[in-house]
Amino acid sequence: MAVENLTAVLHGINDIRLENTPIEEPNEDEVLLEMACVGICGSDVHYLVHGRIGDFIVDKPMIIGHEAAGVVCKLGKNVKNLKVGDRVAIEPGVPCRVCNFCKEGSYNLCPDIIFCATPPVHGNLRRYYKHAADFCFKLPANVSLEEGALLEPLSVGVHACKRAHIDIGSNVLILGAGPIGLVSLLVAKAMGACKVVITDLLQSRLDVAKELGADATFLIEKGMSEEDNIKKIHELFGEAPNRTIDASGAQASIRLAILGTKSGGIAVLVGMGAPEIQVPLINALVREVDIRGVFRYVNDYADALSLVATGKVNVKPLITHNYKIEETREAFETAKTGRGGAIKVMIHCK
Amino acid sequence: MAVENLTAVLHGINDIRLENTPIEEPNEDEVLLEMACVGICGSDVHYLVHGRIGDFIVDKPMIIGHEAAGVVCKLGKNVKNLKVGDRVAIEPGVPCRVCNFCKEGSYNLCPDIIFCATPPVHGNLRRYYKHAADFCFKLPANVSLEEGALLEPLSVGVHACKRAHIDIGSNVLILGAGPIGLVSLLVAKAMGACKVVITDLLQSRLDVAKELGADATFLIEKGMSEEDNIKKIHELFGEAPNRTIDASGAQASIRLAILGTKSGGIAVLVGMGAPEIQVPLINALVREVDIRGVFRYVNDYADALSLVATGKVNVKPLITHNYKIEETREAFETAKTGRGGAIKVMIHCK
Amino acid sequence: MAVENLTAVLHGINDIRLENTPIEEPNEDEVLLEMACVGICGSDVHYLVHGRIGDFIVDKPMIIGHEAAGVVCKLGKNVKNLKVGDRVAIEPGVPCRVCNFCKEGSYNLCPDIIFCATPPVHGNLRRYYKHAADFCFKLPANVSLEEGALLEPLSVGVHACKRAHIDIGSNVLILGAGPIGLVSLLVAKAMGACKVVITDLLQSRLDVAKELGADATFLIEKGMSEEDNIKKIHELFGEAPNRTIDASGAQASIRLAILGTKSGGIAVLVGMGAPEIQVPLINALVREVDIRGVFRYVNDYADALSLVATGKVNVKPLITHNYKIEETREAFETAKTGRGGAIKVMIHCK
Amino acid sequence: MAVENLTAVLHGINDIRLENTPIEEPNEDEVLLEMACVGICGSDVHYLVHGRIGDFIVDKPMIIGHEAAGVVCKLGKNVKNLKVGDRVAIEPGVPCRVCNFCKEGSYNLCPDIIFCATPPVHGNLRRYYKHAADFCFKLPANVSLEEGALLEPLSVGVHACKRAHIDIGSNVLILGAGPIGLVSLLVAKAMGACKVVITDLLQSRLDVAKELGADATFLIEKGMSEEDNIKKIHELFGEAPNRTIDASGAQASIRLAILGTKSGGIAVLVGMGAPEIQVPLINALVREVDIRGVFRYVNDYADALSLVATGKVNVKPLITHNYKIEETREAFETAKTGRGGAIKVMIHCK
Repeated sequence: MAVENLTAVLHGINDIRLENTPIEEPNEDEVLLEMACVGICGSDVHYLVHGRIGDFIVDKPMIIGHEAAGVVCKLGKNVKNLKVGDRVAIEPGVPCRVCNFCKEGSYNLCPDIIFCATPPVHGNLRRYYKHAADFCFKLPANVSLEEGALLEPLSVGVHACKRAHIDIGSNVLILGAGPIGLVSLLVAKAMGACKVVITDLLQSRLDVAKELGADATFLIEKGMSEEDNIKKIHELFGEAPNRTIDASGAQASIRLAILGTKSGGIAVLVGMGAPEIQVPLINALVREVDIRGVFRYVNDYADALSLVATGKVNVKPLITHNYKIEETREAFETAKTGRGGAIKVMIHCK
Repeated sequence: MAVENLTAVLHGINDIRLENTPIEEPNEDEVLLEMACVGICGSDVHYLVHGRIGDFIVDKPMIIGHEAAGVVCKLGKNVKNLKVGDRVAIEPGVPCRVCNFCKEGSYNLCPDIIFCATPPVHGNLRRYYKHAADFCFKLPANVSLEEGALLEPLSVGVHACKRAHIDIGSNVLILGAGPIGLVSLLVAKAMGACKVVITDLLQSRLDVAKELGADATFLIEKGMSEEDNIKKIHELFGEAPNRTIDASGAQASIRLAILGTKSGGIAVLVGMGAPEIQVPLINALVREVDIRGVFRYVNDYADALSLVATGKVNVKPLITHNYKIEETREAFETAKTGRGGAIKVMIHCK
Repeated sequence: MAVENLTAVLHGINDIRLENTPIEEPNEDEVLLEMACVGICGSDVHYLVHGRIGDFIVDKPMIIGHEAAGVVCKLGKNVKNLKVGDRVAIEPGVPCRVCNFCKEGSYNLCPDIIFCATPPVHGNLRRYYKHAADFCFKLPANVSLEEGALLEPLSVGVHACKRAHIDIGSNVLILGAGPIGLVSLLVAKAMGACKVVITDLLQSRLDVAKELGADATFLIEKGMSEEDNIKKIHELFGEAPNRTIDASGAQASIRLAILGTKSGGIAVLVGMGAPEIQVPLINALVREVDIRGVFRYVNDYADALSLVATGKVNVKPLITHNYKIEETREAFETAKTGRGGAIKVMIHCK
Repeated sequence: MAVENLTAVLHGINDIRLENTPIEEPNEDEVLLEMACVGICGSDVHYLVHGRIGDFIVDKPMIIGHEAAGVVCKLGKNVKNLKVGDRVAIEPGVPCRVCNFCKEGSYNLCPDIIFCATPPVHGNLRRYYKHAADFCFKLPANVSLEEGALLEPLSVGVHACKRAHIDIGSNVLILGAGPIGLVSLLVAKAMGACKVVITDLLQSRLDVAKELGADATFLIEKGMSEEDNIKKIHELFGEAPNRTIDASGAQASIRLAILGTKSGGIAVLVGMGAPEIQVPLINALVREVDIRGVFRYVNDYADALSLVATGKVNVKPLITHNYKIEETREAFETAKTGRGGAIKVMIHCK
């Protein structure tokens, strides 16, 4: 085993440094992983640029990274579900297992969850990292480590689509064709959604969405009124969509979700935006359009893996850029600027 | 049968007139009812004062009233579920029965529903009125006609509590102790809610709530900060409530519902307020607090009747004032001003 | 319009006669249809052979047929959703629309439902037939009338799969590869089921299932023990399936469903078998395997049509034999004997 | 702390011995409890009489007892939710916390659950016993330790009623007025059930049920036909009950549940009976009466405690006999024979 453990540490705003950190010893229920690849998430970039997300503040150096896959190189003594050499996807949050949220199957809401790269918890963009064995998902031979890392955003899509109750009767409007919008699209199609229409401000993103299986796309143009946007979206469906997933977080987009969803439908709002927004909430209320948020994922990794392993979704086109861990700063620059049509930037650890 | 059919007709803003109108002939699936009593709803007052609610505009004379009970005096030829002399509560909306909303059990969302006193449909504050027989609920001997009329607001409470998934594990915060807040309180207790705390700006209303079974009450004071209100409400529960029913519609109240509900909980917003509001929506979203509206009721009348008939709820204390139909204007004045501690004003038709 | 209305009338056991019957006049909410094709269902054959199904007895001549599609040739005066010339699939049961089952979205359980070819109600294997317009589903140009007729069994599969809560996390065991097993297979795959394994006593049927998309098939051999069958089925999944759909109705098959389904899973039993069976019910109970029946379908036709119209399922391979209405007796003989590998026998009315 | 730890050990059929056993040391997440009282469950008696339940065989000495409450006398070092002197009810099963059942909120189905007095796991009928701190529920001052012990069977009732989806629209038939039938009755009423009718073969048990709040009781007489029993039960409700809870396990009783429940309803079968039974399953299937088992409880203890603490249910009348731990054999004899109208026999450990 290499003694060197190159690690990407966020020291402050726009200050990522590559350092050597100690290789940790797995406890009895953990495995040590030789990290293979780590994708960059919007939240990683947000910490880089702003030093915080809401009340989570990077006030001391924090290892970045949480969309990851690796290879088991050492087993804690109680570990039975894995063996050395297993290639695994890493579900990055390990909950307390004893609170009511955990016992009731909502461990994503566990207040004591230890989640990679959410301050003050370190992430896994490093050469070696230890993790709870039961939150490592063994990849079958036909699933690559890159796909394994992509199970993280894909699981957000799975959770969003489950929260939206998507099924064969669903006409799904997805607002925003960034990574979360695109994974939601992939999952919605895999769940048998009747029709999926996706919107964005950029035609280039819509082109990707179209390739990934969107039934129709809709370019949001700056000057267009709310009413006109809704009217045109409804025309694309032939009626109002009964399911909407907002993957943007922008106030304008959330307003479309509220106003555009069919009565009795569900609007899932995944995107994270401003702390305060102005919305025509009553429009949704009197039409019994339920509004639901999404916090990460819960019991979704196995489903995400199954979708990839059975070929029901193909996440590979999401990876537009690849970097070595030594190029972490450049990788983050690409993710931050979106240059070169960046969707998902993947960092390889070895 | 009397030839005279005294009727309360809303001609415009603040213009209710008592007139004689034709007694209608029930069609084959309808019954003619000799009306007994009609409660005044906030929406009735709103039409009186503003001449409209949203897009529903009183642009020609409309008979007012929809919280009603009466006695069957004539049967359409196909009617089998009722007989002359039956005392019935009237569910005031009759849906189309053929659209998908109707077929799927969501007839309250039927776009073609005929609903009493929602323009341009006439209401039932008159001496004689005909109605679909299957939307008339026969009252057992131990339920009075006044209680029958109160099944209408009680059904809103039933629907709100069903939408909130209230059960024996629920800590329920009810915001607003007006008629809808109070019926929600009654129903939540009947559903076995663990603890119900109700708030209002008026201590007098909270006193009524306390008598009706609230486990605790909380007076909202004008100068108090959002944070302090939430802190104190949480203290009353010993934790955050996992169910909140806003029966006020005010922005400040909806904000409390969003911020104050436990992660993973449900906030049901029944109250009707401003078309646009500013809310910290993301706070609910990232904590997966679901936000749900309530539109009237659907398949709730039978449950409301059962609650009253079995003595599980006592709605009688809600009636604070009684008037004859000839005193309709005075009755509305009382309802409008809330004078004399008015909660529910009941008009008797004969 | 032709004056002649050739009609297949079941007069008694093994006594189907082709007769001319009056062309009925559609009422105001109905349409008259020029019938295109009618599939033969197992229940049709059962009535032919046994003269009854349970308490439903053919004690006077009854027109047979209920899996049908046709072309609108006359409109009742209130009909707005269709026009003359529209090609439609016919949902064969029209409920009362006023009972609680209907109002609550469970119209399939309506005790007063009028259902084609369920005694004493006539079916639609005739040249002209009238039907409630809102239970006719307009076929888009890319869906044939034969596919329209197949929406009936497909809707049973849709309802079974909805009752089974099939989603992307489902490992689905289907017992029986007859028409209902096969449509359940098609729908389960369209709903994104992880893996579907189907069983039968006949390899020929399994071959069809394999072509239709089964992930694996399992031939039930006569001498094999219950334990061995379950063990081998579990091996095919790699674990116990969490969803089972029995499409056979045989006691041996229901026993496999009970014993073979994963703890906490759902066993949907669609097949109709003996009135009394011996089962190890407690095995399912202590493992909280829910047991659910299926009665026809409810609000499923639109989903079935959407699955066909979007190409998510291909029902065409189910049709193995075609006959003219004049050949009805021969068609039934084929359906009864299963000769020539018959799966679905289709009768063309013109 | 006493050095002596008197313990009731089941050595074989009809062979319970009182012995001194070592006092165990709590691990870091456990507490040591000074046991207060332990109720005798039907399963305890079954092990005593038969030496096994299904595949669970008492093949080496096992400490009996699992319906228990005690007082915290020592804390593991990580324990924060309790302190020495706290009076607690003990949820007797501690799951693995890492399998999918645990993560999905169905820990009662965890295959690795450690459950008191289920071979080979020891129970807690002893003076001192250690247990996972998060499965100990602190009793408020107004709840006695005896009531704390009764939370165990009460939790079965809570789980059964949740599985039955009991609410204010429920007409509930409970078959069997033993301890489980009675706790189901208490919980169903607390959940707001419209009407609860309970049956038994013994009038004395029905008298207790009546005192505990049954709306009506029905004595099953030996010679009466299935049809007559159902007819009379339906008459008591005025229609078929939409929820049935079988707390007997007898084939005759399960048949009534299947045949007597309203179409579209739910039959929950809690009682444990013969491994093979003959049932008219198809009757339930074609009427979409869902059949559901109950295995212990999951996330129900807090609700059970809340029901008792708020006075919504009164479990005290269930305790008909009290014994000291030294009288364990006599206590079991009473429980086994049901002498003296025994419902729940309570053993006091100190």
